[in-house]
Amino acid sequence: MNLVFFAPITGSIAMSIVAYLYWLIKKEDPGTKRMREIASFIQEGANAFLKRQFITILYFIIGLAILLLIAFWPHWQIPFGFVFGALMSQLAIYIGMNATVRANLKTTSAARTSPGRALTIAFRGGAVMGLTIVAFNLLGLSSLFFIFGITESNPEPVSLMVGFGFGASLAALFAQLGGGIYTKAADISADLVGKVEKGIPEDDPRNPAVIADQVGDNVGDCAGRGADLFESGSDNLITTTIVGLAFFPVYGWAGILFPLITRSIGSIGTVVGTFMVRPEEKNPLRSLNMGLFSAGLFAFISFYIVGRYLMNDMALFYALSLGLFASLSISLIVQYYTGYDKRPVKEIAEGAKSGAAINLLSGFSYGMESVFLPIIILGGVTIASYFVAGGGIIGVYGIVAATLGITEMKGIIMASDAFGPIVDNAAGIGEMSGQKKEIRRSLDVLDSAGNITKAITKGYAMACCLMTGVVVLFAYLFEAARMQNMPFVELNDIIINLINPMNIVALMIGTTIPFLFTALAIRAVGRTAFEMIGDIRKQFRESPGILAGKVKPDYSRCVDISTRYALKEMVLPTMVGLVAPIIVGFILGIWALAAFLIAVKIVSAVLATFMFNSGGAWDNAKKYIEDGHFGGKGTEAHASSVIGDTFGDPLKDTAGPSLHILIKLENILSITFLPLFIAYAFL
Amino acid sequence: MNLVFFAPITGSIAMSIVAYLYWLIKKEDPGTKRMREIASFIQEGANAFLKRQFITILYFIIGLAILLLIAFWPHWQIPFGFVFGALMSQLAIYIGMNATVRANLKTTSAARTSPGRALTIAFRGGAVMGLTIVAFNLLGLSSLFFIFGITESNPEPVSLMVGFGFGASLAALFAQLGGGIYTKAADISADLVGKVEKGIPEDDPRNPAVIADQVGDNVGDCAGRGADLFESGSDNLITTTIVGLAFFPVYGWAGILFPLITRSIGSIGTVVGTFMVRPEEKNPLRSLNMGLFSAGLFAFISFYIVGRYLMNDMALFYALSLGLFASLSISLIVQYYTGYDKRPVKEIAEGAKSGAAINLLSGFSYGMESVFLPIIILGGVTIASYFVAGGGIIGVYGIVAATLGITEMKGIIMASDAFGPIVDNAAGIGEMSGQKKEIRRSLDVLDSAGNITKAITKGYAMACCLMTGVVVLFAYLFEAARMQNMPFVELNDIIINLINPMNIVALMIGTTIPFLFTALAIRAVGRTAFEMIGDIRKQFRESPGILAGKVKPDYSRCVDISTRYALKEMVLPTMVGLVAPIIVGFILGIWALAAFLIAVKIVSAVLATFMFNSGGAWDNAKKYIEDGHFGGKGTEAHASSVIGDTFGDPLKDTAGPSLHILIKLENILSITFLPLFIAYAFL
Repeated sequence: MNLVFFAPITGSIAMSIVAYLYWLIKKEDPGTKRMREIASFIQEGANAFLKRQFITILYFIIGLAILLLIAFWPHWQIPFGFVFGALMSQLAIYIGMNATVRANLKTTSAARTSPGRALTIAFRGGAVMGLTIVAFNLLGLSSLFFIFGITESNPEPVSLMVGFGFGASLAALFAQLGGGIYTKAADISADLVGKVEKGIPEDDPRNPAVIADQVGDNVGDCAGRGADLFESGSDNLITTTIVGLAFFPVYGWAGILFPLITRSIGSIGTVVGTFMVRPEEKNPLRSLNMGLFSAGLFAFISFYIVGRYLMNDMALFYALSLGLFASLSISLIVQYYTGYDKRPVKEIAEGAKSGAAINLLSGFSYGMESVFLPIIILGGVTIASYFVAGGGIIGVYGIVAATLGITEMKGIIMASDAFGPIVDNAAGIGEMSGQKKEIRRSLDVLDSAGNITKAITKGYAMACCLMTGVVVLFAYLFEAARMQNMPFVELNDIIINLINPMNIVALMIGTTIPFLFTALAIRAVGRTAFEMIGDIRKQFRESPGILAGKVKPDYSRCVDISTRYALKEMVLPTMVGLVAPIIVGFILGIWALAAFLIAVKIVSAVLATFMFNSGGAWDNAKKYIEDGHFGGKGTEAHASSVIGDTFGDPLKDTAGPSLHILIKLENILSITFLPLFIAYAFL
Repeated sequence: MNLVFFAPITGSIAMSIVAYLYWLIKKEDPGTKRMREIASFIQEGANAFLKRQFITILYFIIGLAILLLIAFWPHWQIPFGFVFGALMSQLAIYIGMNATVRANLKTTSAARTSPGRALTIAFRGGAVMGLTIVAFNLLGLSSLFFIFGITESNPEPVSLMVGFGFGASLAALFAQLGGGIYTKAADISADLVGKVEKGIPEDDPRNPAVIADQVGDNVGDCAGRGADLFESGSDNLITTTIVGLAFFPVYGWAGILFPLITRSIGSIGTVVGTFMVRPEEKNPLRSLNMGLFSAGLFAFISFYIVGRYLMNDMALFYALSLGLFASLSISLIVQYYTGYDKRPVKEIAEGAKSGAAINLLSGFSYGMESVFLPIIILGGVTIASYFVAGGGIIGVYGIVAATLGITEMKGIIMASDAFGPIVDNAAGIGEMSGQKKEIRRSLDVLDSAGNITKAITKGYAMACCLMTGVVVLFAYLFEAARMQNMPFVELNDIIINLINPMNIVALMIGTTIPFLFTALAIRAVGRTAFEMIGDIRKQFRESPGILAGKVKPDYSRCVDISTRYALKEMVLPTMVGLVAPIIVGFILGIWALAAFLIAVKIVSAVLATFMFNSGGAWDNAKKYIEDGHFGGKGTEAHASSVIGDTFGDPLKDTAGPSLHILIKLENILSITFLPLFIAYAFL
């Protein structure tokens, strides 16, 4: 059997499991009328946002598809792949989010009788997203093999798959930015007016922004992150396959199929991991870890099989395992810097006693420090996998394998990540529908487990992102070499001239892009929040009955404002991301563009890590104080920690994740446009 | 006459002017007994700090000198230059600071009769620092020409001058870090306990930290910045001269003298500019601008003469002028982003109405945005000067000329910068000695002019720093090539292999160093402030008479704490700066080290600019509110803006300026150790 069929088969199996999980969730008890009502508000808001976001993205897709059609005429593959990738991404997050906005209600309902059952439902909801993404990666890219007629005797068209990656990246940037702006603007506004100004608790139904806040969890943390992982999965597959094309003289057809097959096995690992998550009453984290651990073990064994029998090269097994090791250890480091019970968070919380500024400085400082070790580990794994594979040009394929090793756990990690917004929502629905204290407490236990899985995901995403970035760079360089008919033996000499100031200037400009992008993303949150705060204050002012709990606030107004502004504000940062590499490519040329891409990549990864970890640490420092340390709620220290948390929110949930997508968008876009840059360079 | 004598002659002229200015300041009226008493406290504290800092630095100097002596034996030039550079730096800031701690008192005193006279005295105090630094650069480096026997027939030993640069850089990093930690810890503590907790005004003599705060202005803003500019001046001269050595086949001896002569003319320009600052009652800024403008015009004319007659290459005149233009336009951009009356600051201030978090996010966002345009301008000037000079390897000399153009205004800029802490101190002495309201108001007018000059300096320092960074990179590459006996015609092919992961990993690690360094620098401020806050609270608690104004607080305790902790805390970040390039150089090799240095340089420059501009904007947003906008003092908005200002302070005044020095320290250190890396590389 041709091994290329392995991917669509495992992809289809994964999708059948998705259907099964969906059916399992659907047949659960939907709870009381009040619970259903609240859940339907969230569901409607999330769907409305996704629909309007899709329309906005559609304009860009159509416009760019026409441009690509003209630019690449008569080659239809790039624009076709572009549209295909973007639509697959949107469909995947539509399916995934439809599960999360159902699973939240069922989780709350189940918590009334069995907390363990609630855990299982929530995890299954997340697994729908995780599996859909992995399956769609496999189905989408393997179908390109058939559509483009990629075979052992005609492997060259794999390089045309970049169009798919470009579409997936663009859709993801929109989804993550739009969702990220939405969720943080709603979160900040709900907190600032509700908690700080009016003194009502979180998730209080009197808060006009409470539904928008819940919707935000779904469209930001869930749909946005889903699109992110879909694009990083496809970009990773595409670029490793392109590097495989360059290694055709060494590994042949197996080198091209290696990524797809490794990932296919990963999808089975995700299924295995999902069913290893068993109901657990006391310690939900143990249950989630069981899922992660089984998927990890499965990956490790499969690496051996792939290395031994598919590639006939045990060095690749070692490199794959090195990648797995890196993703694990980076997750541990992130847990140290953002963990609730670790020194940094405690010190940041203690700083809040001396005022908000000390709390801020301390979190800022730990966030900046936290970038060091992960990078050292990644650097070490890069060099180690390079030498393990034999160094030289062959060593590069070792780095590719390490990257595949890091990204192998994508599905199960996404499942635990999407678990977060589901239990967060479930706790919200519990609060708003007035459930009993013990039910709410058991949902809170799940919620705090969700916070930890979210933190792990971020560390993992960062490791994936930077390593994929290295491989994407190789793909770019190899494609540039291939288009200039450089033979394989000369690839070792792809160089960048340091005396040529064009390259230095490209590095400089590349360094500023992540800063500029972050600036625009954060400003977008600020502007959207500003509008929402105005409306919430107006609602409280115009009908005093809202605060008294006698009049229902108009939830839809807040939902509408965040939808409109998030979609409006996501355009400018995206344009910066799209335009910058095109200008650099045309004016400074393709080697300067490589320098530009390197700078964007490394600086974005480091900046995003800093923002993730500072934001996460401030968040947990606040929780630490809220749990009664340093005086608890109502103290100066608590007020200071709330400032840190609010400041950190858009850093960690809007700018940071979007930067991850930016890296890959700029890279894949540059590969897509390579032939045009070569043909029409200015300098 | 041998043109090499031009430097010591102009340097000596500048030092005679320094003596004259010092005499002018000294003969001014010293004011009342109370004023003299306060000034003597500041003077003693500043001198005590400088002395103890010198002892700490001395340990490092001796230790490193011995190491260098062993490593380079029997070549004594590197260790000799190292000690010489470090001592020159310390002597320069000792002279400069002795003028500022005298000029502050005389400025307050003069303000009682003539605000215009006060302005002149303060500016002269600053000019002592500015001129001393330029003169010491010239005297120090030209004497190395004689000591090392550098002549037209034996130009090679210019490369040994790097030892001097290393010494100057190390001393500067200590001075800037130590001074920066001191000043910000004192500032934050005085504000947090005095202003926020006890509600007493700024510079109130009841605050136990008030003297430490004033001392901090001198040791941080003045001595620290002086050491910074001394090292960037010498590194700039040394590396441009080393590049000149590589261009010996093209420009001959003139190419080696070009930097020294350009800078000698610059010292005359500083003298001219100093005496163009005339007493001005109403608009002190106009008077300061007059000084800047005259020095700029003088530079422009001298560029023509140097290009036309010394170098016989008008392209260099254009390149020099391009540099001058870049420094001007970047200063304007910085003024836009941090200016009191510009849109960003107003928007940040308005954000404070919605709470501290919005104020923080807005400032963070504008700071990040602000890095974009300066880098684009620098990139444009780099490319333009490269092509103006003819492109190719010759084009590199055009970039060198542009860098000399940017750094030409160093003396006069330093003078206006040191003007800042003098008038700040003068206002403090006025407040503490209970001067009349109108006198204090006229000092406040000078103080706000000083804030603007400080902001301009930071933009200018950033432009200098990044451009010097580019030239230092060239010096590194040319030295590496020279040591491997590469002929001039091959220099164009100095390249970095992108397929070799060592280079990519070096770029990654280089990117994290500025983040790690910033983390440690900010933590140092936090820790020092923590100790001081404890002591201030204790003083208030133990003798309630202090707050009532009946008992004098023990100023010396706060001065002692900040001195001790600042000196202790400055060591770790410095060690990171010293050790990182040595490890990379020995393990990953000299070309990977080049990649590391590029990353450190560009990321530091961008990160520092972000921190300068965010910090400056938060500072001015607070002032904007204090002047009565959005409700003025005592409102929620004001409290929020104070948080932004306090958070921004260590970013802009400790971490940012220290990063500038870090860049050059790592570069010059790498050049110094080049022969050892080549001999003992690991991989």
